[in-house]
Amino acid sequence: MSRTSPTSITQPKGFRAAGGTCGIKPSGKPDLALIVSDVPCATAAVFTTNKVKGAPVLVSQKHVRNGKARAIVCNSGTSNVATGEQGVRDAEAMCTATAKALGMRYPGEVLVASTGVIGHRLPMDKVLPGIADLAPTLARGKQADTAAAQAILTTDLVRKTALRKITLGTPGKTVTLGGICKGSGMIAPNMATMLAFITTDAAIAPGILKAALRDAVAHTFNRVSVDSDKSTSDSVMILANGLAGHRPITTPGKHFNAFTEALTDLCRDLCEQLIWDGEGVTRIMRVRVSGAASAKDADRVGRSVVDSPLVKTALHGADPNWGRIAMAAGKSDAKLHKDKLSIRIAGMDIYRQGQPTKLGLNPPAKLAKAMAAKEVIIEVDLGLGHAAAEWLGCDLSREYIHINADYTT
Amino acid sequence: MSRTSPTSITQPKGFRAAGGTCGIKPSGKPDLALIVSDVPCATAAVFTTNKVKGAPVLVSQKHVRNGKARAIVCNSGTSNVATGEQGVRDAEAMCTATAKALGMRYPGEVLVASTGVIGHRLPMDKVLPGIADLAPTLARGKQADTAAAQAILTTDLVRKTALRKITLGTPGKTVTLGGICKGSGMIAPNMATMLAFITTDAAIAPGILKAALRDAVAHTFNRVSVDSDKSTSDSVMILANGLAGHRPITTPGKHFNAFTEALTDLCRDLCEQLIWDGEGVTRIMRVRVSGAASAKDADRVGRSVVDSPLVKTALHGADPNWGRIAMAAGKSDAKLHKDKLSIRIAGMDIYRQGQPTKLGLNPPAKLAKAMAAKEVIIEVDLGLGHAAAEWLGCDLSREYIHINADYTT
Repeated sequence: MSRTSPTSITQPKGFRAAGGTCGIKPSGKPDLALIVSDVPCATAAVFTTNKVKGAPVLVSQKHVRNGKARAIVCNSGTSNVATGEQGVRDAEAMCTATAKALGMRYPGEVLVASTGVIGHRLPMDKVLPGIADLAPTLARGKQADTAAAQAILTTDLVRKTALRKITLGTPGKTVTLGGICKGSGMIAPNMATMLAFITTDAAIAPGILKAALRDAVAHTFNRVSVDSDKSTSDSVMILANGLAGHRPITTPGKHFNAFTEALTDLCRDLCEQLIWDGEGVTRIMRVRVSGAASAKDADRVGRSVVDSPLVKTALHGADPNWGRIAMAAGKSDAKLHKDKLSIRIAGMDIYRQGQPTKLGLNPPAKLAKAMAAKEVIIEVDLGLGHAAAEWLGCDLSREYIHINADYTT
Repeated sequence: MSRTSPTSITQPKGFRAAGGTCGIKPSGKPDLALIVSDVPCATAAVFTTNKVKGAPVLVSQKHVRNGKARAIVCNSGTSNVATGEQGVRDAEAMCTATAKALGMRYPGEVLVASTGVIGHRLPMDKVLPGIADLAPTLARGKQADTAAAQAILTTDLVRKTALRKITLGTPGKTVTLGGICKGSGMIAPNMATMLAFITTDAAIAPGILKAALRDAVAHTFNRVSVDSDKSTSDSVMILANGLAGHRPITTPGKHFNAFTEALTDLCRDLCEQLIWDGEGVTRIMRVRVSGAASAKDADRVGRSVVDSPLVKTALHGADPNWGRIAMAAGKSDAKLHKDKLSIRIAGMDIYRQGQPTKLGLNPPAKLAKAMAAKEVIIEVDLGLGHAAAEWLGCDLSREYIHINADYTT
């Protein structure tokens, strides 16, 4: 299932990365990562919509505003969330230390992210020297990519990396996109966080880069749900340094579309790795909603199905329980007529226009077998319009309960 | 915790009930209940807002419209949901058979409810004779109440019954309210359903009865969440026959308020029994939201906290994890400023105006002990306004997964 690339964020021209240990995690595992471009970049980012935002999110929101940045610093082990004004000062100090270590004039050119335990101050006496120590190890290549991808993890079981190349312009120039991400594992004993850092040597103006990132995230990260909770730290950041040498993309059009498509594909790759590494996940569902009256409605139904505990437990039990899928579709705020609703599981017609089919009433052995696969495709047709959406979800298992209940502070 | 009353729906004057077995359930357990008033009643009902509604809901919605009814018929074992036009005809046939067995002229005076497996036709060859056989056994008293309360259950572990008495008018007349309910256990292998049937000898006009029921349900059944899913069959029905003999309540005022308060109290009693019988529940949470900018916002935050898988698993693990509570509050659509948010657990200040307190950073032993209680009170103050709401929720346990995943169709 996973298409993990051994190389990632330093494959685009002019990027270096590093990952190491500064001592935040009691385990002594890697906890600090740096990503830097040799030249200034256009930047864009998408952050959690949770109203309780971590200090690093607040600082990065400010730094990304002018569309320019050159570096990303990220620690794992402590999230710097719910730490008040002091937390904001600490996140700013991380940017200042990074800028200084890299010989950059403005801390505003650095974006910052943190993930880990909530409510505790960052151990700045470890983090700041850690940044200074890590900067000289910045490098290109597989080893650097791996070190950075490793250092941003918390309870994740595997590193998540992706790479895409496209050709833009005449004569054609190769544009490379690399990405790493973490999540959606829980931070013992606190909360899930998803972080993704993307680099590219594409030449693209900040405004249009933001549009491309928003579009890619809307179709990928925003359509994945492990447990319906929403972290206070979720961040997707992109740096685009223009070194691919093609004519800059400044307006919508053919090149913008090609770039956005590659970016979306890269994000989708990271999402698939992310959901497979979700806590306690044994099986995933791909929920394809069609026939919705609006795009918003398609999203509402997709989200409602992948987040339903009853659908998630049915998936875990390999039970082709279309009744729970109909219930989950019906409880969303989307426009829905029960007599127009149809459901297919693994390509088999189970429920058609408000009535179970023969297959639905007497599920055959091949349906039970399909439900027991690692990936199950659920199609929900509302029969009302032409809007569609695909959501990615996973099962709910005892292991999820174990991971999230059996820690105590 | 439970205040179950041994008597319930036949305590108000002029009501009889019966419960028995007609053969729907393979287990041979009771599956059919009747509740009847000797005289015509005012009636009101609140149904699921799920857009996929069961056939009995559609039929009862029609029958309740004129505010008059005399009987309720309910079967368990099969829900008659997602059964198309035939399902509606079957639900209507149940009303017709009940009216006939009771010597009533209009099937429209009968409300109907079904709970159980989804997507299968009711075995009408068992249900219709069952109704005819059950009608002659209608009686008053503890045994009849118990039989009816038992016959509406599915995977519930205990019967849920409640009783309230108030005095209305001058000279004071005793008004009695009785109620039974089922849920929110799952129907193997399908979905949770909550049904509640309430009888009273109060004299009250249909329009104002509807207002009283809506108010009571809004503060009780609509603020309980076992697993965030919403059944296609949920129904709360009330019959009021006026035999208490006080002056009829026709307008808002003192008597209306007293009646609504008693009705709300009765519903709250049923809700507490219901949540303790939720699937796999080992511990409950009472989430008190205050300081919200609007009543809607208070509800949004309450629901978001009780439905959060991360809060639910923390509760299961007796972990005073205020970070997850802050996250759950922040992810709702309610207006919220993180620097005004405060959280108390079991009366202890954990998080105050956006910052953890000393107790929050170093949870004392007494907090751990309070979290391990059967019932945990969580207070969330948004610090923005004066609206408040109390929600009732429960933990998420391995047993929930077991019940909902380990069946296969």
